[in-house]
Order: sequence, then C-alpha cells, then structure tokens
Amino acid sequence: MRTIVQKFGGSSVADPSLIKNVAQRVVHTKDEGNRVVVVVSALGDTTDELLDLVHKITDHPGEREIDMLLSTGEQVSIALLAMAINKLGYSAISFTGFQAGIYTDDAHSKARILKIDPQRVRQELDQDKIVVVAGFQGITESGEIATLGRGGSDTTAVALAAALKADLCEIYTDVDGVYTADPRVVPSAVKLDSISYDEMLELASLGALVLQPRAVEFAKNYAVPLSIRSSFNDYEGTLVGEVESVENCRPVSGIAHDLNVAKIGIFDVPDCPGMARKIFLTLANEKINVDMIIQGWVRDDRNDIVFTVTRGDLERALPVVEAIVKEIGASGFVYNDQVAKVSIVGAGMVTNPGVAADMFKVLAREGINIEMISTSEIKVSCIIQEDQSIKAVNALHAEFIK
Amino acid sequence: MRTIVQKFGGSSVADPSLIKNVAQRVVHTKDEGNRVVVVVSALGDTTDELLDLVHKITDHPGEREIDMLLSTGEQVSIALLAMAINKLGYSAISFTGFQAGIYTDDAHSKARILKIDPQRVRQELDQDKIVVVAGFQGITESGEIATLGRGGSDTTAVALAAALKADLCEIYTDVDGVYTADPRVVPSAVKLDSISYDEMLELASLGALVLQPRAVEFAKNYAVPLSIRSSFNDYEGTLVGEVESVENCRPVSGIAHDLNVAKIGIFDVPDCPGMARKIFLTLANEKINVDMIIQGWVRDDRNDIVFTVTRGDLERALPVVEAIVKEIGASGFVYNDQVAKVSIVGAGMVTNPGVAADMFKVLAREGINIEMISTSEIKVSCIIQEDQSIKAVNALHAEFIK
Repeated sequence: MRTIVQKFGGSSVADPSLIKNVAQRVVHTKDEGNRVVVVVSALGDTTDELLDLVHKITDHPGEREIDMLLSTGEQVSIALLAMAINKLGYSAISFTGFQAGIYTDDAHSKARILKIDPQRVRQELDQDKIVVVAGFQGITESGEIATLGRGGSDTTAVALAAALKADLCEIYTDVDGVYTADPRVVPSAVKLDSISYDEMLELASLGALVLQPRAVEFAKNYAVPLSIRSSFNDYEGTLVGEVESVENCRPVSGIAHDLNVAKIGIFDVPDCPGMARKIFLTLANEKINVDMIIQGWVRDDRNDIVFTVTRGDLERALPVVEAIVKEIGASGFVYNDQVAKVSIVGAGMVTNPGVAADMFKVLAREGINIEMISTSEIKVSCIIQEDQSIKAVNALHAEFIK
Repeated sequence: MRTIVQKFGGSSVADPSLIKNVAQRVVHTKDEGNRVVVVVSALGDTTDELLDLVHKITDHPGEREIDMLLSTGEQVSIALLAMAINKLGYSAISFTGFQAGIYTDDAHSKARILKIDPQRVRQELDQDKIVVVAGFQGITESGEIATLGRGGSDTTAVALAAALKADLCEIYTDVDGVYTADPRVVPSAVKLDSISYDEMLELASLGALVLQPRAVEFAKNYAVPLSIRSSFNDYEGTLVGEVESVENCRPVSGIAHDLNVAKIGIFDVPDCPGMARKIFLTLANEKINVDMIIQGWVRDDRNDIVFTVTRGDLERALPVVEAIVKEIGASGFVYNDQVAKVSIVGAGMVTNPGVAADMFKVLAREGINIEMISTSEIKVSCIIQEDQSIKAVNALHAEFIK
C-alpha cells in the first residue's frame, strides 16, 4: 500500500466550499488504495486578518507571540478539513504540528524542522484513518509553538513524507506544474513532465516560486519524490525527482525571470584584503539578503564591487551602503532598481559547454545589454534592464526550448 | 508578594481597544506589587464565527474536531493580550492550556480538569513575567486538545489559582458583582459585599449566572477566595469565600429566579420499587438534565411523579417520557413550559427555622399559586406560573432583603 502526502495551500482552502473540494480529492486518493496524509495551510486571508489585529495593538509584537497567534490559522484549517472528510463517510483525524511530532529549533517565525517523530501519525494511518496535519508549524524542545516562515507548509509536507518514507509528496497549488517559462510572459511556454531537484531549486530561487527552495532542498536531501500539480483540475503535474529518474535530454529545462531585483555598485573600493568581507558581513548583520556579487569590474585601474538585493530591501540597504562607503574610503555608490534577472536553468548544461555563450549571443542579437553575469553548474543568470526582460525571456525560450 | 489570578471573559476582550484596556488593568495589578496570572476567553464572537464555518461543512462535526477548532479562539486572545501588555513596557508570556500544564479527561467539549502542573507558569512568574493563559482548554493524557465546555474559562482561572495557591482569583465580568436579585427585575436589588461558596453555588445553579457552578465548586473545594467584579469600572466587586469569612447576619442573601424551566408530570406510576430509577436513568441516558423532582403528589390514591427540565431539553424529553409511560404502564403525562422557578438563598437559613414558611406566606399574600416546592439547607425554590415571577421576586426581595 502506497503512502501519499498531499499539501494544499491557503488558496485551496479559502472557504467552506473549497474545503469540501479538497476533501473530495483526498478521499479519491484514499479510494485508490493509498494511505493518505494531508498538510494544509491557513484559510485564505486568515494570516492577514490576524496581523491586522496585531497592528491595532502594537508595532513590535515579538516573534514568539506572533507564532502563538498565526499558528491558530492552520489549526482552524485542519479541524474544518477533517470534519469535511468525515462528512463524506471517511475517518479523518487532525493534528497540530506538536501532535504530529514536528520538532523545530527556536528561531520563531523562521524555525527549521529539526526532526519528526511520526509515531502518532503512523498509528492513525495503521487504523485506516486519513491524517490531517497543520502545516507551517512545529514545537520547540522547550514546548514553544514555532512557525516555519514563508512556504513553511511545503516544508512540513516534504519533511513528513521523508519521515514516513512516503512514496510521493503531492504539492497542490494554483498552477498546473512547472513551466519552461512563466506562461504569462512567454505564451509558448510548456509544462514540464519532470525536472530534477537541482533544476527546481534554481528555478525556485530565481523567482519561479511554485515551491519554496527550503522544501526542495529537503526533498533532495531525503530523496522524496514530489509532484507539483493544480488543486483546481486533474491534469498530471510536474514530477520533481533524482536527476537519473527525470527526462534530461536537453541542456536547458526552463527560463526564469525575476523583477524583484535592485543593483548596487560601490566605486573605488580600496584594493586590500577584507574589503568584500566587511561590506557583505555588514549587510548580512542588517538582515539584507545579497544575491549576485561581481567583483573585478575594472574601471580606470580601480576596484568596483557590484551586487544585487531584492527591491524590498533596497531602502534599508542604501544607508548601510552609504556608511560602508565612508568607512572603507570608497569613492561613492550608485543603485538601480529598474533591472531584472533572466536565467536559463538545466541539469544538462554541465555536459553541454557553450550554453552560456549561446545565451549571450541571443541577448546580443536582440540588442539587450548585459549588466551582470553569474553562473552555476546548472544555470546562467544575467542582469538586464527591466523593460527588456519580456523580450529576453521570449527570445531565450525560442532558442533553448522551442 | 501576593499572587493574583485574573479572568477576563470574551466581552472584555472583544476588540483591540478592549484588549488594551485589559492590559492596563493587568499591569496596574502588577504595579501594586503582585504576581499576576491572566486567564482569557476567546474574542467576543469568535466562537460563533467558527461554528458558522462548521455549519457550512457538516451537521455532525464530531467533538474532538470541534475542540481542535474552538481552542484556537483563546489562543488568539492570549497572543494579542501578551502583545498589548508587552507594548506597555512590561514582560508578558502567553501559554496555551497545554503549555500551562492543564490536564483534562477526554470528554471532549465538556472535559473536566484532572490536574494542573503549574511548573512553567511558576517559572515565568519567578522571572517577574505576567503570564497569560488560555481559558476553556486543556490537554488530555494522550495529547488531545479538549475544551471545558460552558464557563470553562472561569474553571481554568479557579483551578490555576488553586494550583498556584494564589491569594485571590478575580473574575471580571460585565456586572459589578453578585446582587441580592436580578437588578433588571428588582430595581431595589443591591450588590452583596460578600457571599459564601454555598450561597454562590445555589445562586449560580438557580439562573443568576455570573459564575459557572463548576468554577464555584472548584473554588469551594480548594478554598480559593474569589472576587467577582466588572471589567468596565473600578468598583469593588463581591467577595466569595468561606462562610466564616463572609458577612452572614441575615438568613436570606439573595432572591433568584429562572425562566428556563419546564415541568413534566407522569400520572399513575405503578407503586412498585425501581420506578423512579427507571424514569430518571432513561432521561439521564438521553442526556436530559432533570432539576427538581417531586414524588408523592397524591391524587386519587395514585402515585404521580413531577419533575422539571430546562426548556431547551423539553422537545427531546417528551418522546422519551412518552415511551417510559408506555413501558411502565403509567396512565399518561402532561407538561407545561410556562413556569418559572423563584428561590431564596442564604447560608443563615440553616439556623433560622421558619424562613420557608415566610416565603410561602409572601407568595400566598400576593395570590401566587405554588406548583412545586424543593428545599435544601440554604435555599427554598418554588415553581410558579411564569407570568407571576416578577411580582414574586419583588415581593420576596422586599420581605427578606429590604
């Protein structure tokens, strides 16, 4: 008998009628002879509604109390979904993160799962029950409720699947699967039947956020097969698995683009050891995530450093950068938030030299100036002007996919 | 240093501005040099809103899942109240029933507290924190979330006060304290400064529901001094304590009345052993609570049994009674839901013979027919016609109180 973990996000359980739909889908999987564990997020806008209450009380709620508050959202979902499943004549039982044995570290609001003790879940499965587990939450060693942060329910599902040695973890979402590019931007984009963990990881990190990178990492580390599919139709989704098990005949699997990018350049950084460390440690301490970093952009024999941050972090980053410039004796800095990152991703690139060059050729042909380049074994990313990103993505898709 | 447990009901924390008011009151108590534990209920209409969602999904939600759902209400309250207290510059920490060490039996939706392990609460108090505890909920031995049923937050507060050996348990409500009669019915009713546990128990049971009988029982058993007071003003409330410690110079402390009463009479019950047992065991099995029972209402040398139930239970009780009548061979039954119960309550009655006779005299003088009488050591209750209840209560108040 196969064990399947199914995860449904907040938009899939936004109201009672949608909850009933999810229940139908769950019992259908059960009817096919599977042991079924369901992980759910909070109903639709619940989290925002709870945060509205907080803002009427305080600007500094404290992360422990925020976790105490927000974790109620999933608890409402699991109770209602269990009721809806029971209503269909099946036997379901709901578990909070604590009851499901999900132990986390104590980094409130962005906790990491340390271990899962799936004993109770397994007991209920053995008694032929459908187990409904609250996503996004766990309990610390000292008995505190902690939430996992953005995309946490994906991680809960994958971690549970790993602990239960499940045969499949299905992530239900509002898209049909992973596409070769964003279909809203590239009309000819097609759904991928399969993709490797590494490719999925790069695509997720690059802004094609059908699945949180942390969840993909977890799935990769524990070799949990994932299926990403729509909760609103019955199409087969995209299978994410080991590179051996997925179709892998073309060098590039997908084209990603990300508009949530801003570029900052520091001019004339003194050429002595420890300068880069100084700059990026200071930014990290201010919790500003830096993505691409390019050093060695030589101008008049001086040393410039250019890097990217998310646009949301730009406003906080600028005064920090200004202070750094003064401190290290650089000559100044510039920034630009009208840029975009376009990337080609594919596990096949490793064995296909020249793919990067092909990418630069396509962009040049389209008259698109490349401002920054960054590469890994399975992706090439370029920073370009934002207003050229749609043209770039379509040209790259036509070149590498079809 | 005194330890004070304060309990605030749902109407006291119905919105963010009320929550801020409660926070002010809590820190005021802290400022007076006390160790403070606060027990809160769910925000205003939360429970009803959650049950509305349930009704859109199923008519038979199951009590375990209902508890899973409804217990989120208090969890929201404790997080928000802790935030509001922290915002005032004090240090608060919120605890679910589980975290506060409140263990219950597994009678979901009407669980009883089995024991309290207040270790974590005490640790936080020792670190000078204000501890905010979710009322109405606990955890079973097997790790299930269970709710305590109606008035459960009162019981949580009293039980915590007992476990912590608190000096006082303050129950904040929307009335100023315990009155000699319902002020909406008897304009001359006055607030009592103090009252004994037994008197409070009788008044609560008799429909003057400022405090749940279970909470009063708990307070009595563990000798927890209670103060019942308003969360909307600073008036001293009513102190509920041992009979020695309360003012007790008049035989009657209060006049209670209860309109939630229906009367059922079974005619010609065969005069053989076990008949009463048969009738009331059958009703108990159907979860119909019977209040007053009178046997020996002799009519034509036959044996009639009359009893009262709440009006809400009447509809369910009638077919049960009809079946019993057939089974035991009684001649028939009647019912009347246009009755009321009026009662005089006072610990001083024990040592004041003739109080009951005085009550009957007053009712007779007012031309009020008594349909049933029931007495205990500290109360006399009469069933009368509902439309005479206001006249009865006022006449009794004038006679016994002032």
